[in-house]
Amino acid sequence: MKKNAVVGQSGGPTSVINASLYGVLNESFKHEDTIGCVYGMINGIEGFLNNQIMNLSKLRNSSELSLIQTTPGAYLGSCRYKLPEDLSNPIYSELFSKFEEYNIGYFFYIGGNDSMDTVSKLSLYAKKVNSDIRIIGIPKTIDNDLIETDHTPGYGSAAKYVASTVREISIDASVYDNKKSVTIIEIMGRHAGWLTAASALARKFDGDNPLLIYLPEAVFDTESFLQKVKEALEHTANVVVCISEGIRDKDGKFICEYSHSVGIDTFGHKMLTGSGKYLENLVKDHIGVKVRSIELNVCQRCSSSMLSKTDHEEAIHSGSFGVISAKNGETGKMVALKRSSLDTYDIQYILKDVNQICNQEKVVPSDWIINDGTDISEEFIRYMLPLIQGSVSVPMENGVPVFAYRK
Amino acid sequence: MKKNAVVGQSGGPTSVINASLYGVLNESFKHEDTIGCVYGMINGIEGFLNNQIMNLSKLRNSSELSLIQTTPGAYLGSCRYKLPEDLSNPIYSELFSKFEEYNIGYFFYIGGNDSMDTVSKLSLYAKKVNSDIRIIGIPKTIDNDLIETDHTPGYGSAAKYVASTVREISIDASVYDNKKSVTIIEIMGRHAGWLTAASALARKFDGDNPLLIYLPEAVFDTESFLQKVKEALEHTANVVVCISEGIRDKDGKFICEYSHSVGIDTFGHKMLTGSGKYLENLVKDHIGVKVRSIELNVCQRCSSSMLSKTDHEEAIHSGSFGVISAKNGETGKMVALKRSSLDTYDIQYILKDVNQICNQEKVVPSDWIINDGTDISEEFIRYMLPLIQGSVSVPMENGVPVFAYRK
Repeated sequence: MKKNAVVGQSGGPTSVINASLYGVLNESFKHEDTIGCVYGMINGIEGFLNNQIMNLSKLRNSSELSLIQTTPGAYLGSCRYKLPEDLSNPIYSELFSKFEEYNIGYFFYIGGNDSMDTVSKLSLYAKKVNSDIRIIGIPKTIDNDLIETDHTPGYGSAAKYVASTVREISIDASVYDNKKSVTIIEIMGRHAGWLTAASALARKFDGDNPLLIYLPEAVFDTESFLQKVKEALEHTANVVVCISEGIRDKDGKFICEYSHSVGIDTFGHKMLTGSGKYLENLVKDHIGVKVRSIELNVCQRCSSSMLSKTDHEEAIHSGSFGVISAKNGETGKMVALKRSSLDTYDIQYILKDVNQICNQEKVVPSDWIINDGTDISEEFIRYMLPLIQGSVSVPMENGVPVFAYRK
Repeated sequence: MKKNAVVGQSGGPTSVINASLYGVLNESFKHEDTIGCVYGMINGIEGFLNNQIMNLSKLRNSSELSLIQTTPGAYLGSCRYKLPEDLSNPIYSELFSKFEEYNIGYFFYIGGNDSMDTVSKLSLYAKKVNSDIRIIGIPKTIDNDLIETDHTPGYGSAAKYVASTVREISIDASVYDNKKSVTIIEIMGRHAGWLTAASALARKFDGDNPLLIYLPEAVFDTESFLQKVKEALEHTANVVVCISEGIRDKDGKFICEYSHSVGIDTFGHKMLTGSGKYLENLVKDHIGVKVRSIELNVCQRCSSSMLSKTDHEEAIHSGSFGVISAKNGETGKMVALKRSSLDTYDIQYILKDVNQICNQEKVVPSDWIINDGTDISEEFIRYMLPLIQGSVSVPMENGVPVFAYRK
């Protein structure tokens, strides 16, 4: 029986979350016999509850559909909305009535940990009420912290951006190589250091920057940090250090919280500065060399100039695999990527029970963090390198990239 | 008579300062009859004084030479060094003895205002002592603040980076479009707002972000700023504001100085934060919506992913035109770009007296700044648009761009 589909995006955007949306749409459009109209939830499940729903079938064969492939952000808008734990909450019957109203047979949700929580709860409720709606999660996150999958669409492009940008900043930092300097680059990641670890790929030769890499997985000690920076300055004039925004001390306190507790603004309120800014001041005070901190900020997740072809293709394929799986009767699953070993790159698309995945966090293995928590191992490089391969050409007009805009 | 050449880079780097170096080298290598060896000053005139000199002729026909074209930073290293005003200072005779020692007949210096001061002083000294060394300045700066030239190599690529990145950040900022937010993007430029003005090119449609653009050329008033942001939030959920780092109040005080006077770090020292961070706190306190500030930082001048083909070609041509001019007997000049009108793009390479250029600053014309100093006019767009056209392919290896490194 022909049923409609609905797709949503949730959580922080990535450069390829729309590539997964493209994958869902493009695949759905191929199955006119079973999938009727494709609806989009504007601002995820939260918007859906407020009847913010659009018809995406009109995009079939449009140039807009093709543009969506390389548009950063979330074409459908996003949300950070947690469904209630209690499945007897009336919100669930409300949602499923709406599904019925729109004759929904397929539900696709593109997101990370929190979004998989939504997929899990909806599929548990569907089971409870004997609904035959097929509910599938499609993974995305620049943080690469979803379990049960080798890696996550969105990570490769963010990592490629980080590696390239750290290489460029290192070159920039070395132009006054007759003067000592320290550059601290703060990279996204509160709990998992996958993205910061990718900065190791910026190195071109032994001893190249970044000389020190700090992840949230290892305890950060400011004394030891200052000592390592001093040592590095003895043999390298311009030292680049990469840190995760989420580095923590031995008591689990975020390093950025140290500056919060003292800095105040004109209005007497706490000034929020990042870990990088805090360490910048620390280096200035204790070492006295020229020092600068740089936050790579949201560009890590929205730059279209450093899309990894591998990541982009995997994001599209994850979306289409989700559709095929739902069509085959699967539900309550997340699309996952399987790889047989570090030395081969033979990605298979599989399904994993979403209930086992949501609200879990995959961190960088401790044996991949080396040199007293200041560097990353060769195993990581072998893991990472295939993920950033290849480039994607983004359409340009008037000298700037052209993106799709929801109308 | 065959003479050697020496070339140096000075001031802040740009993405195409090495393209100009490539232009100088490539052109010099074509004139073996008149130009012998080409030397490079490591870290500009400061390094030259310390005998940091390398032979660049070995790069002829090398793959390294080709890589230099698209390498950001300053291949030769840079300096910020001001020669003494007094031409009778012994440093000048020391320099010219060194020129004689290396049989230098041609001196090329790639840089901005301060570097043109060096070119000016050296050419005045050369005249004074009847030296026949030909001294030529080759313009570069992302700030576009050199006078007597339509624009400056380095500006177009930085502007393309700014326009593209502001467009991407605006898309990222709008994913939670059911929640009001303000994003403040801080762009380089202490005195001239050319680069910040380029953020206007990020707009795709009328009413698109950035909704407000503030340059250092117009007085910045915080009350009026807050009012404008409030008004913008009435019709647009996610407001993006672009500001120059150098915005100033009616008394000429930098806005960023306001935060300096209050913020202190753990050690009781002043915390240096930028104008964007200061305004972020202001919006949080007075408007109370979600607010984020983003510094585009050094990526503006070192990103290789958004090179403008126009800018890149002009940077190379400026270098080669400098060599041809010197060979033709010109000295004490800076290469400049001439354009007949805003409506045609017919760049001619000309020479201008460097003494008239150095230490001057070209700011954005006041009649191009509109809407009470919150936007930029159509004339600016017509001026700017040709400068960011075309892309440059940067060689990639292992998923990241490959750059030249001085050995």
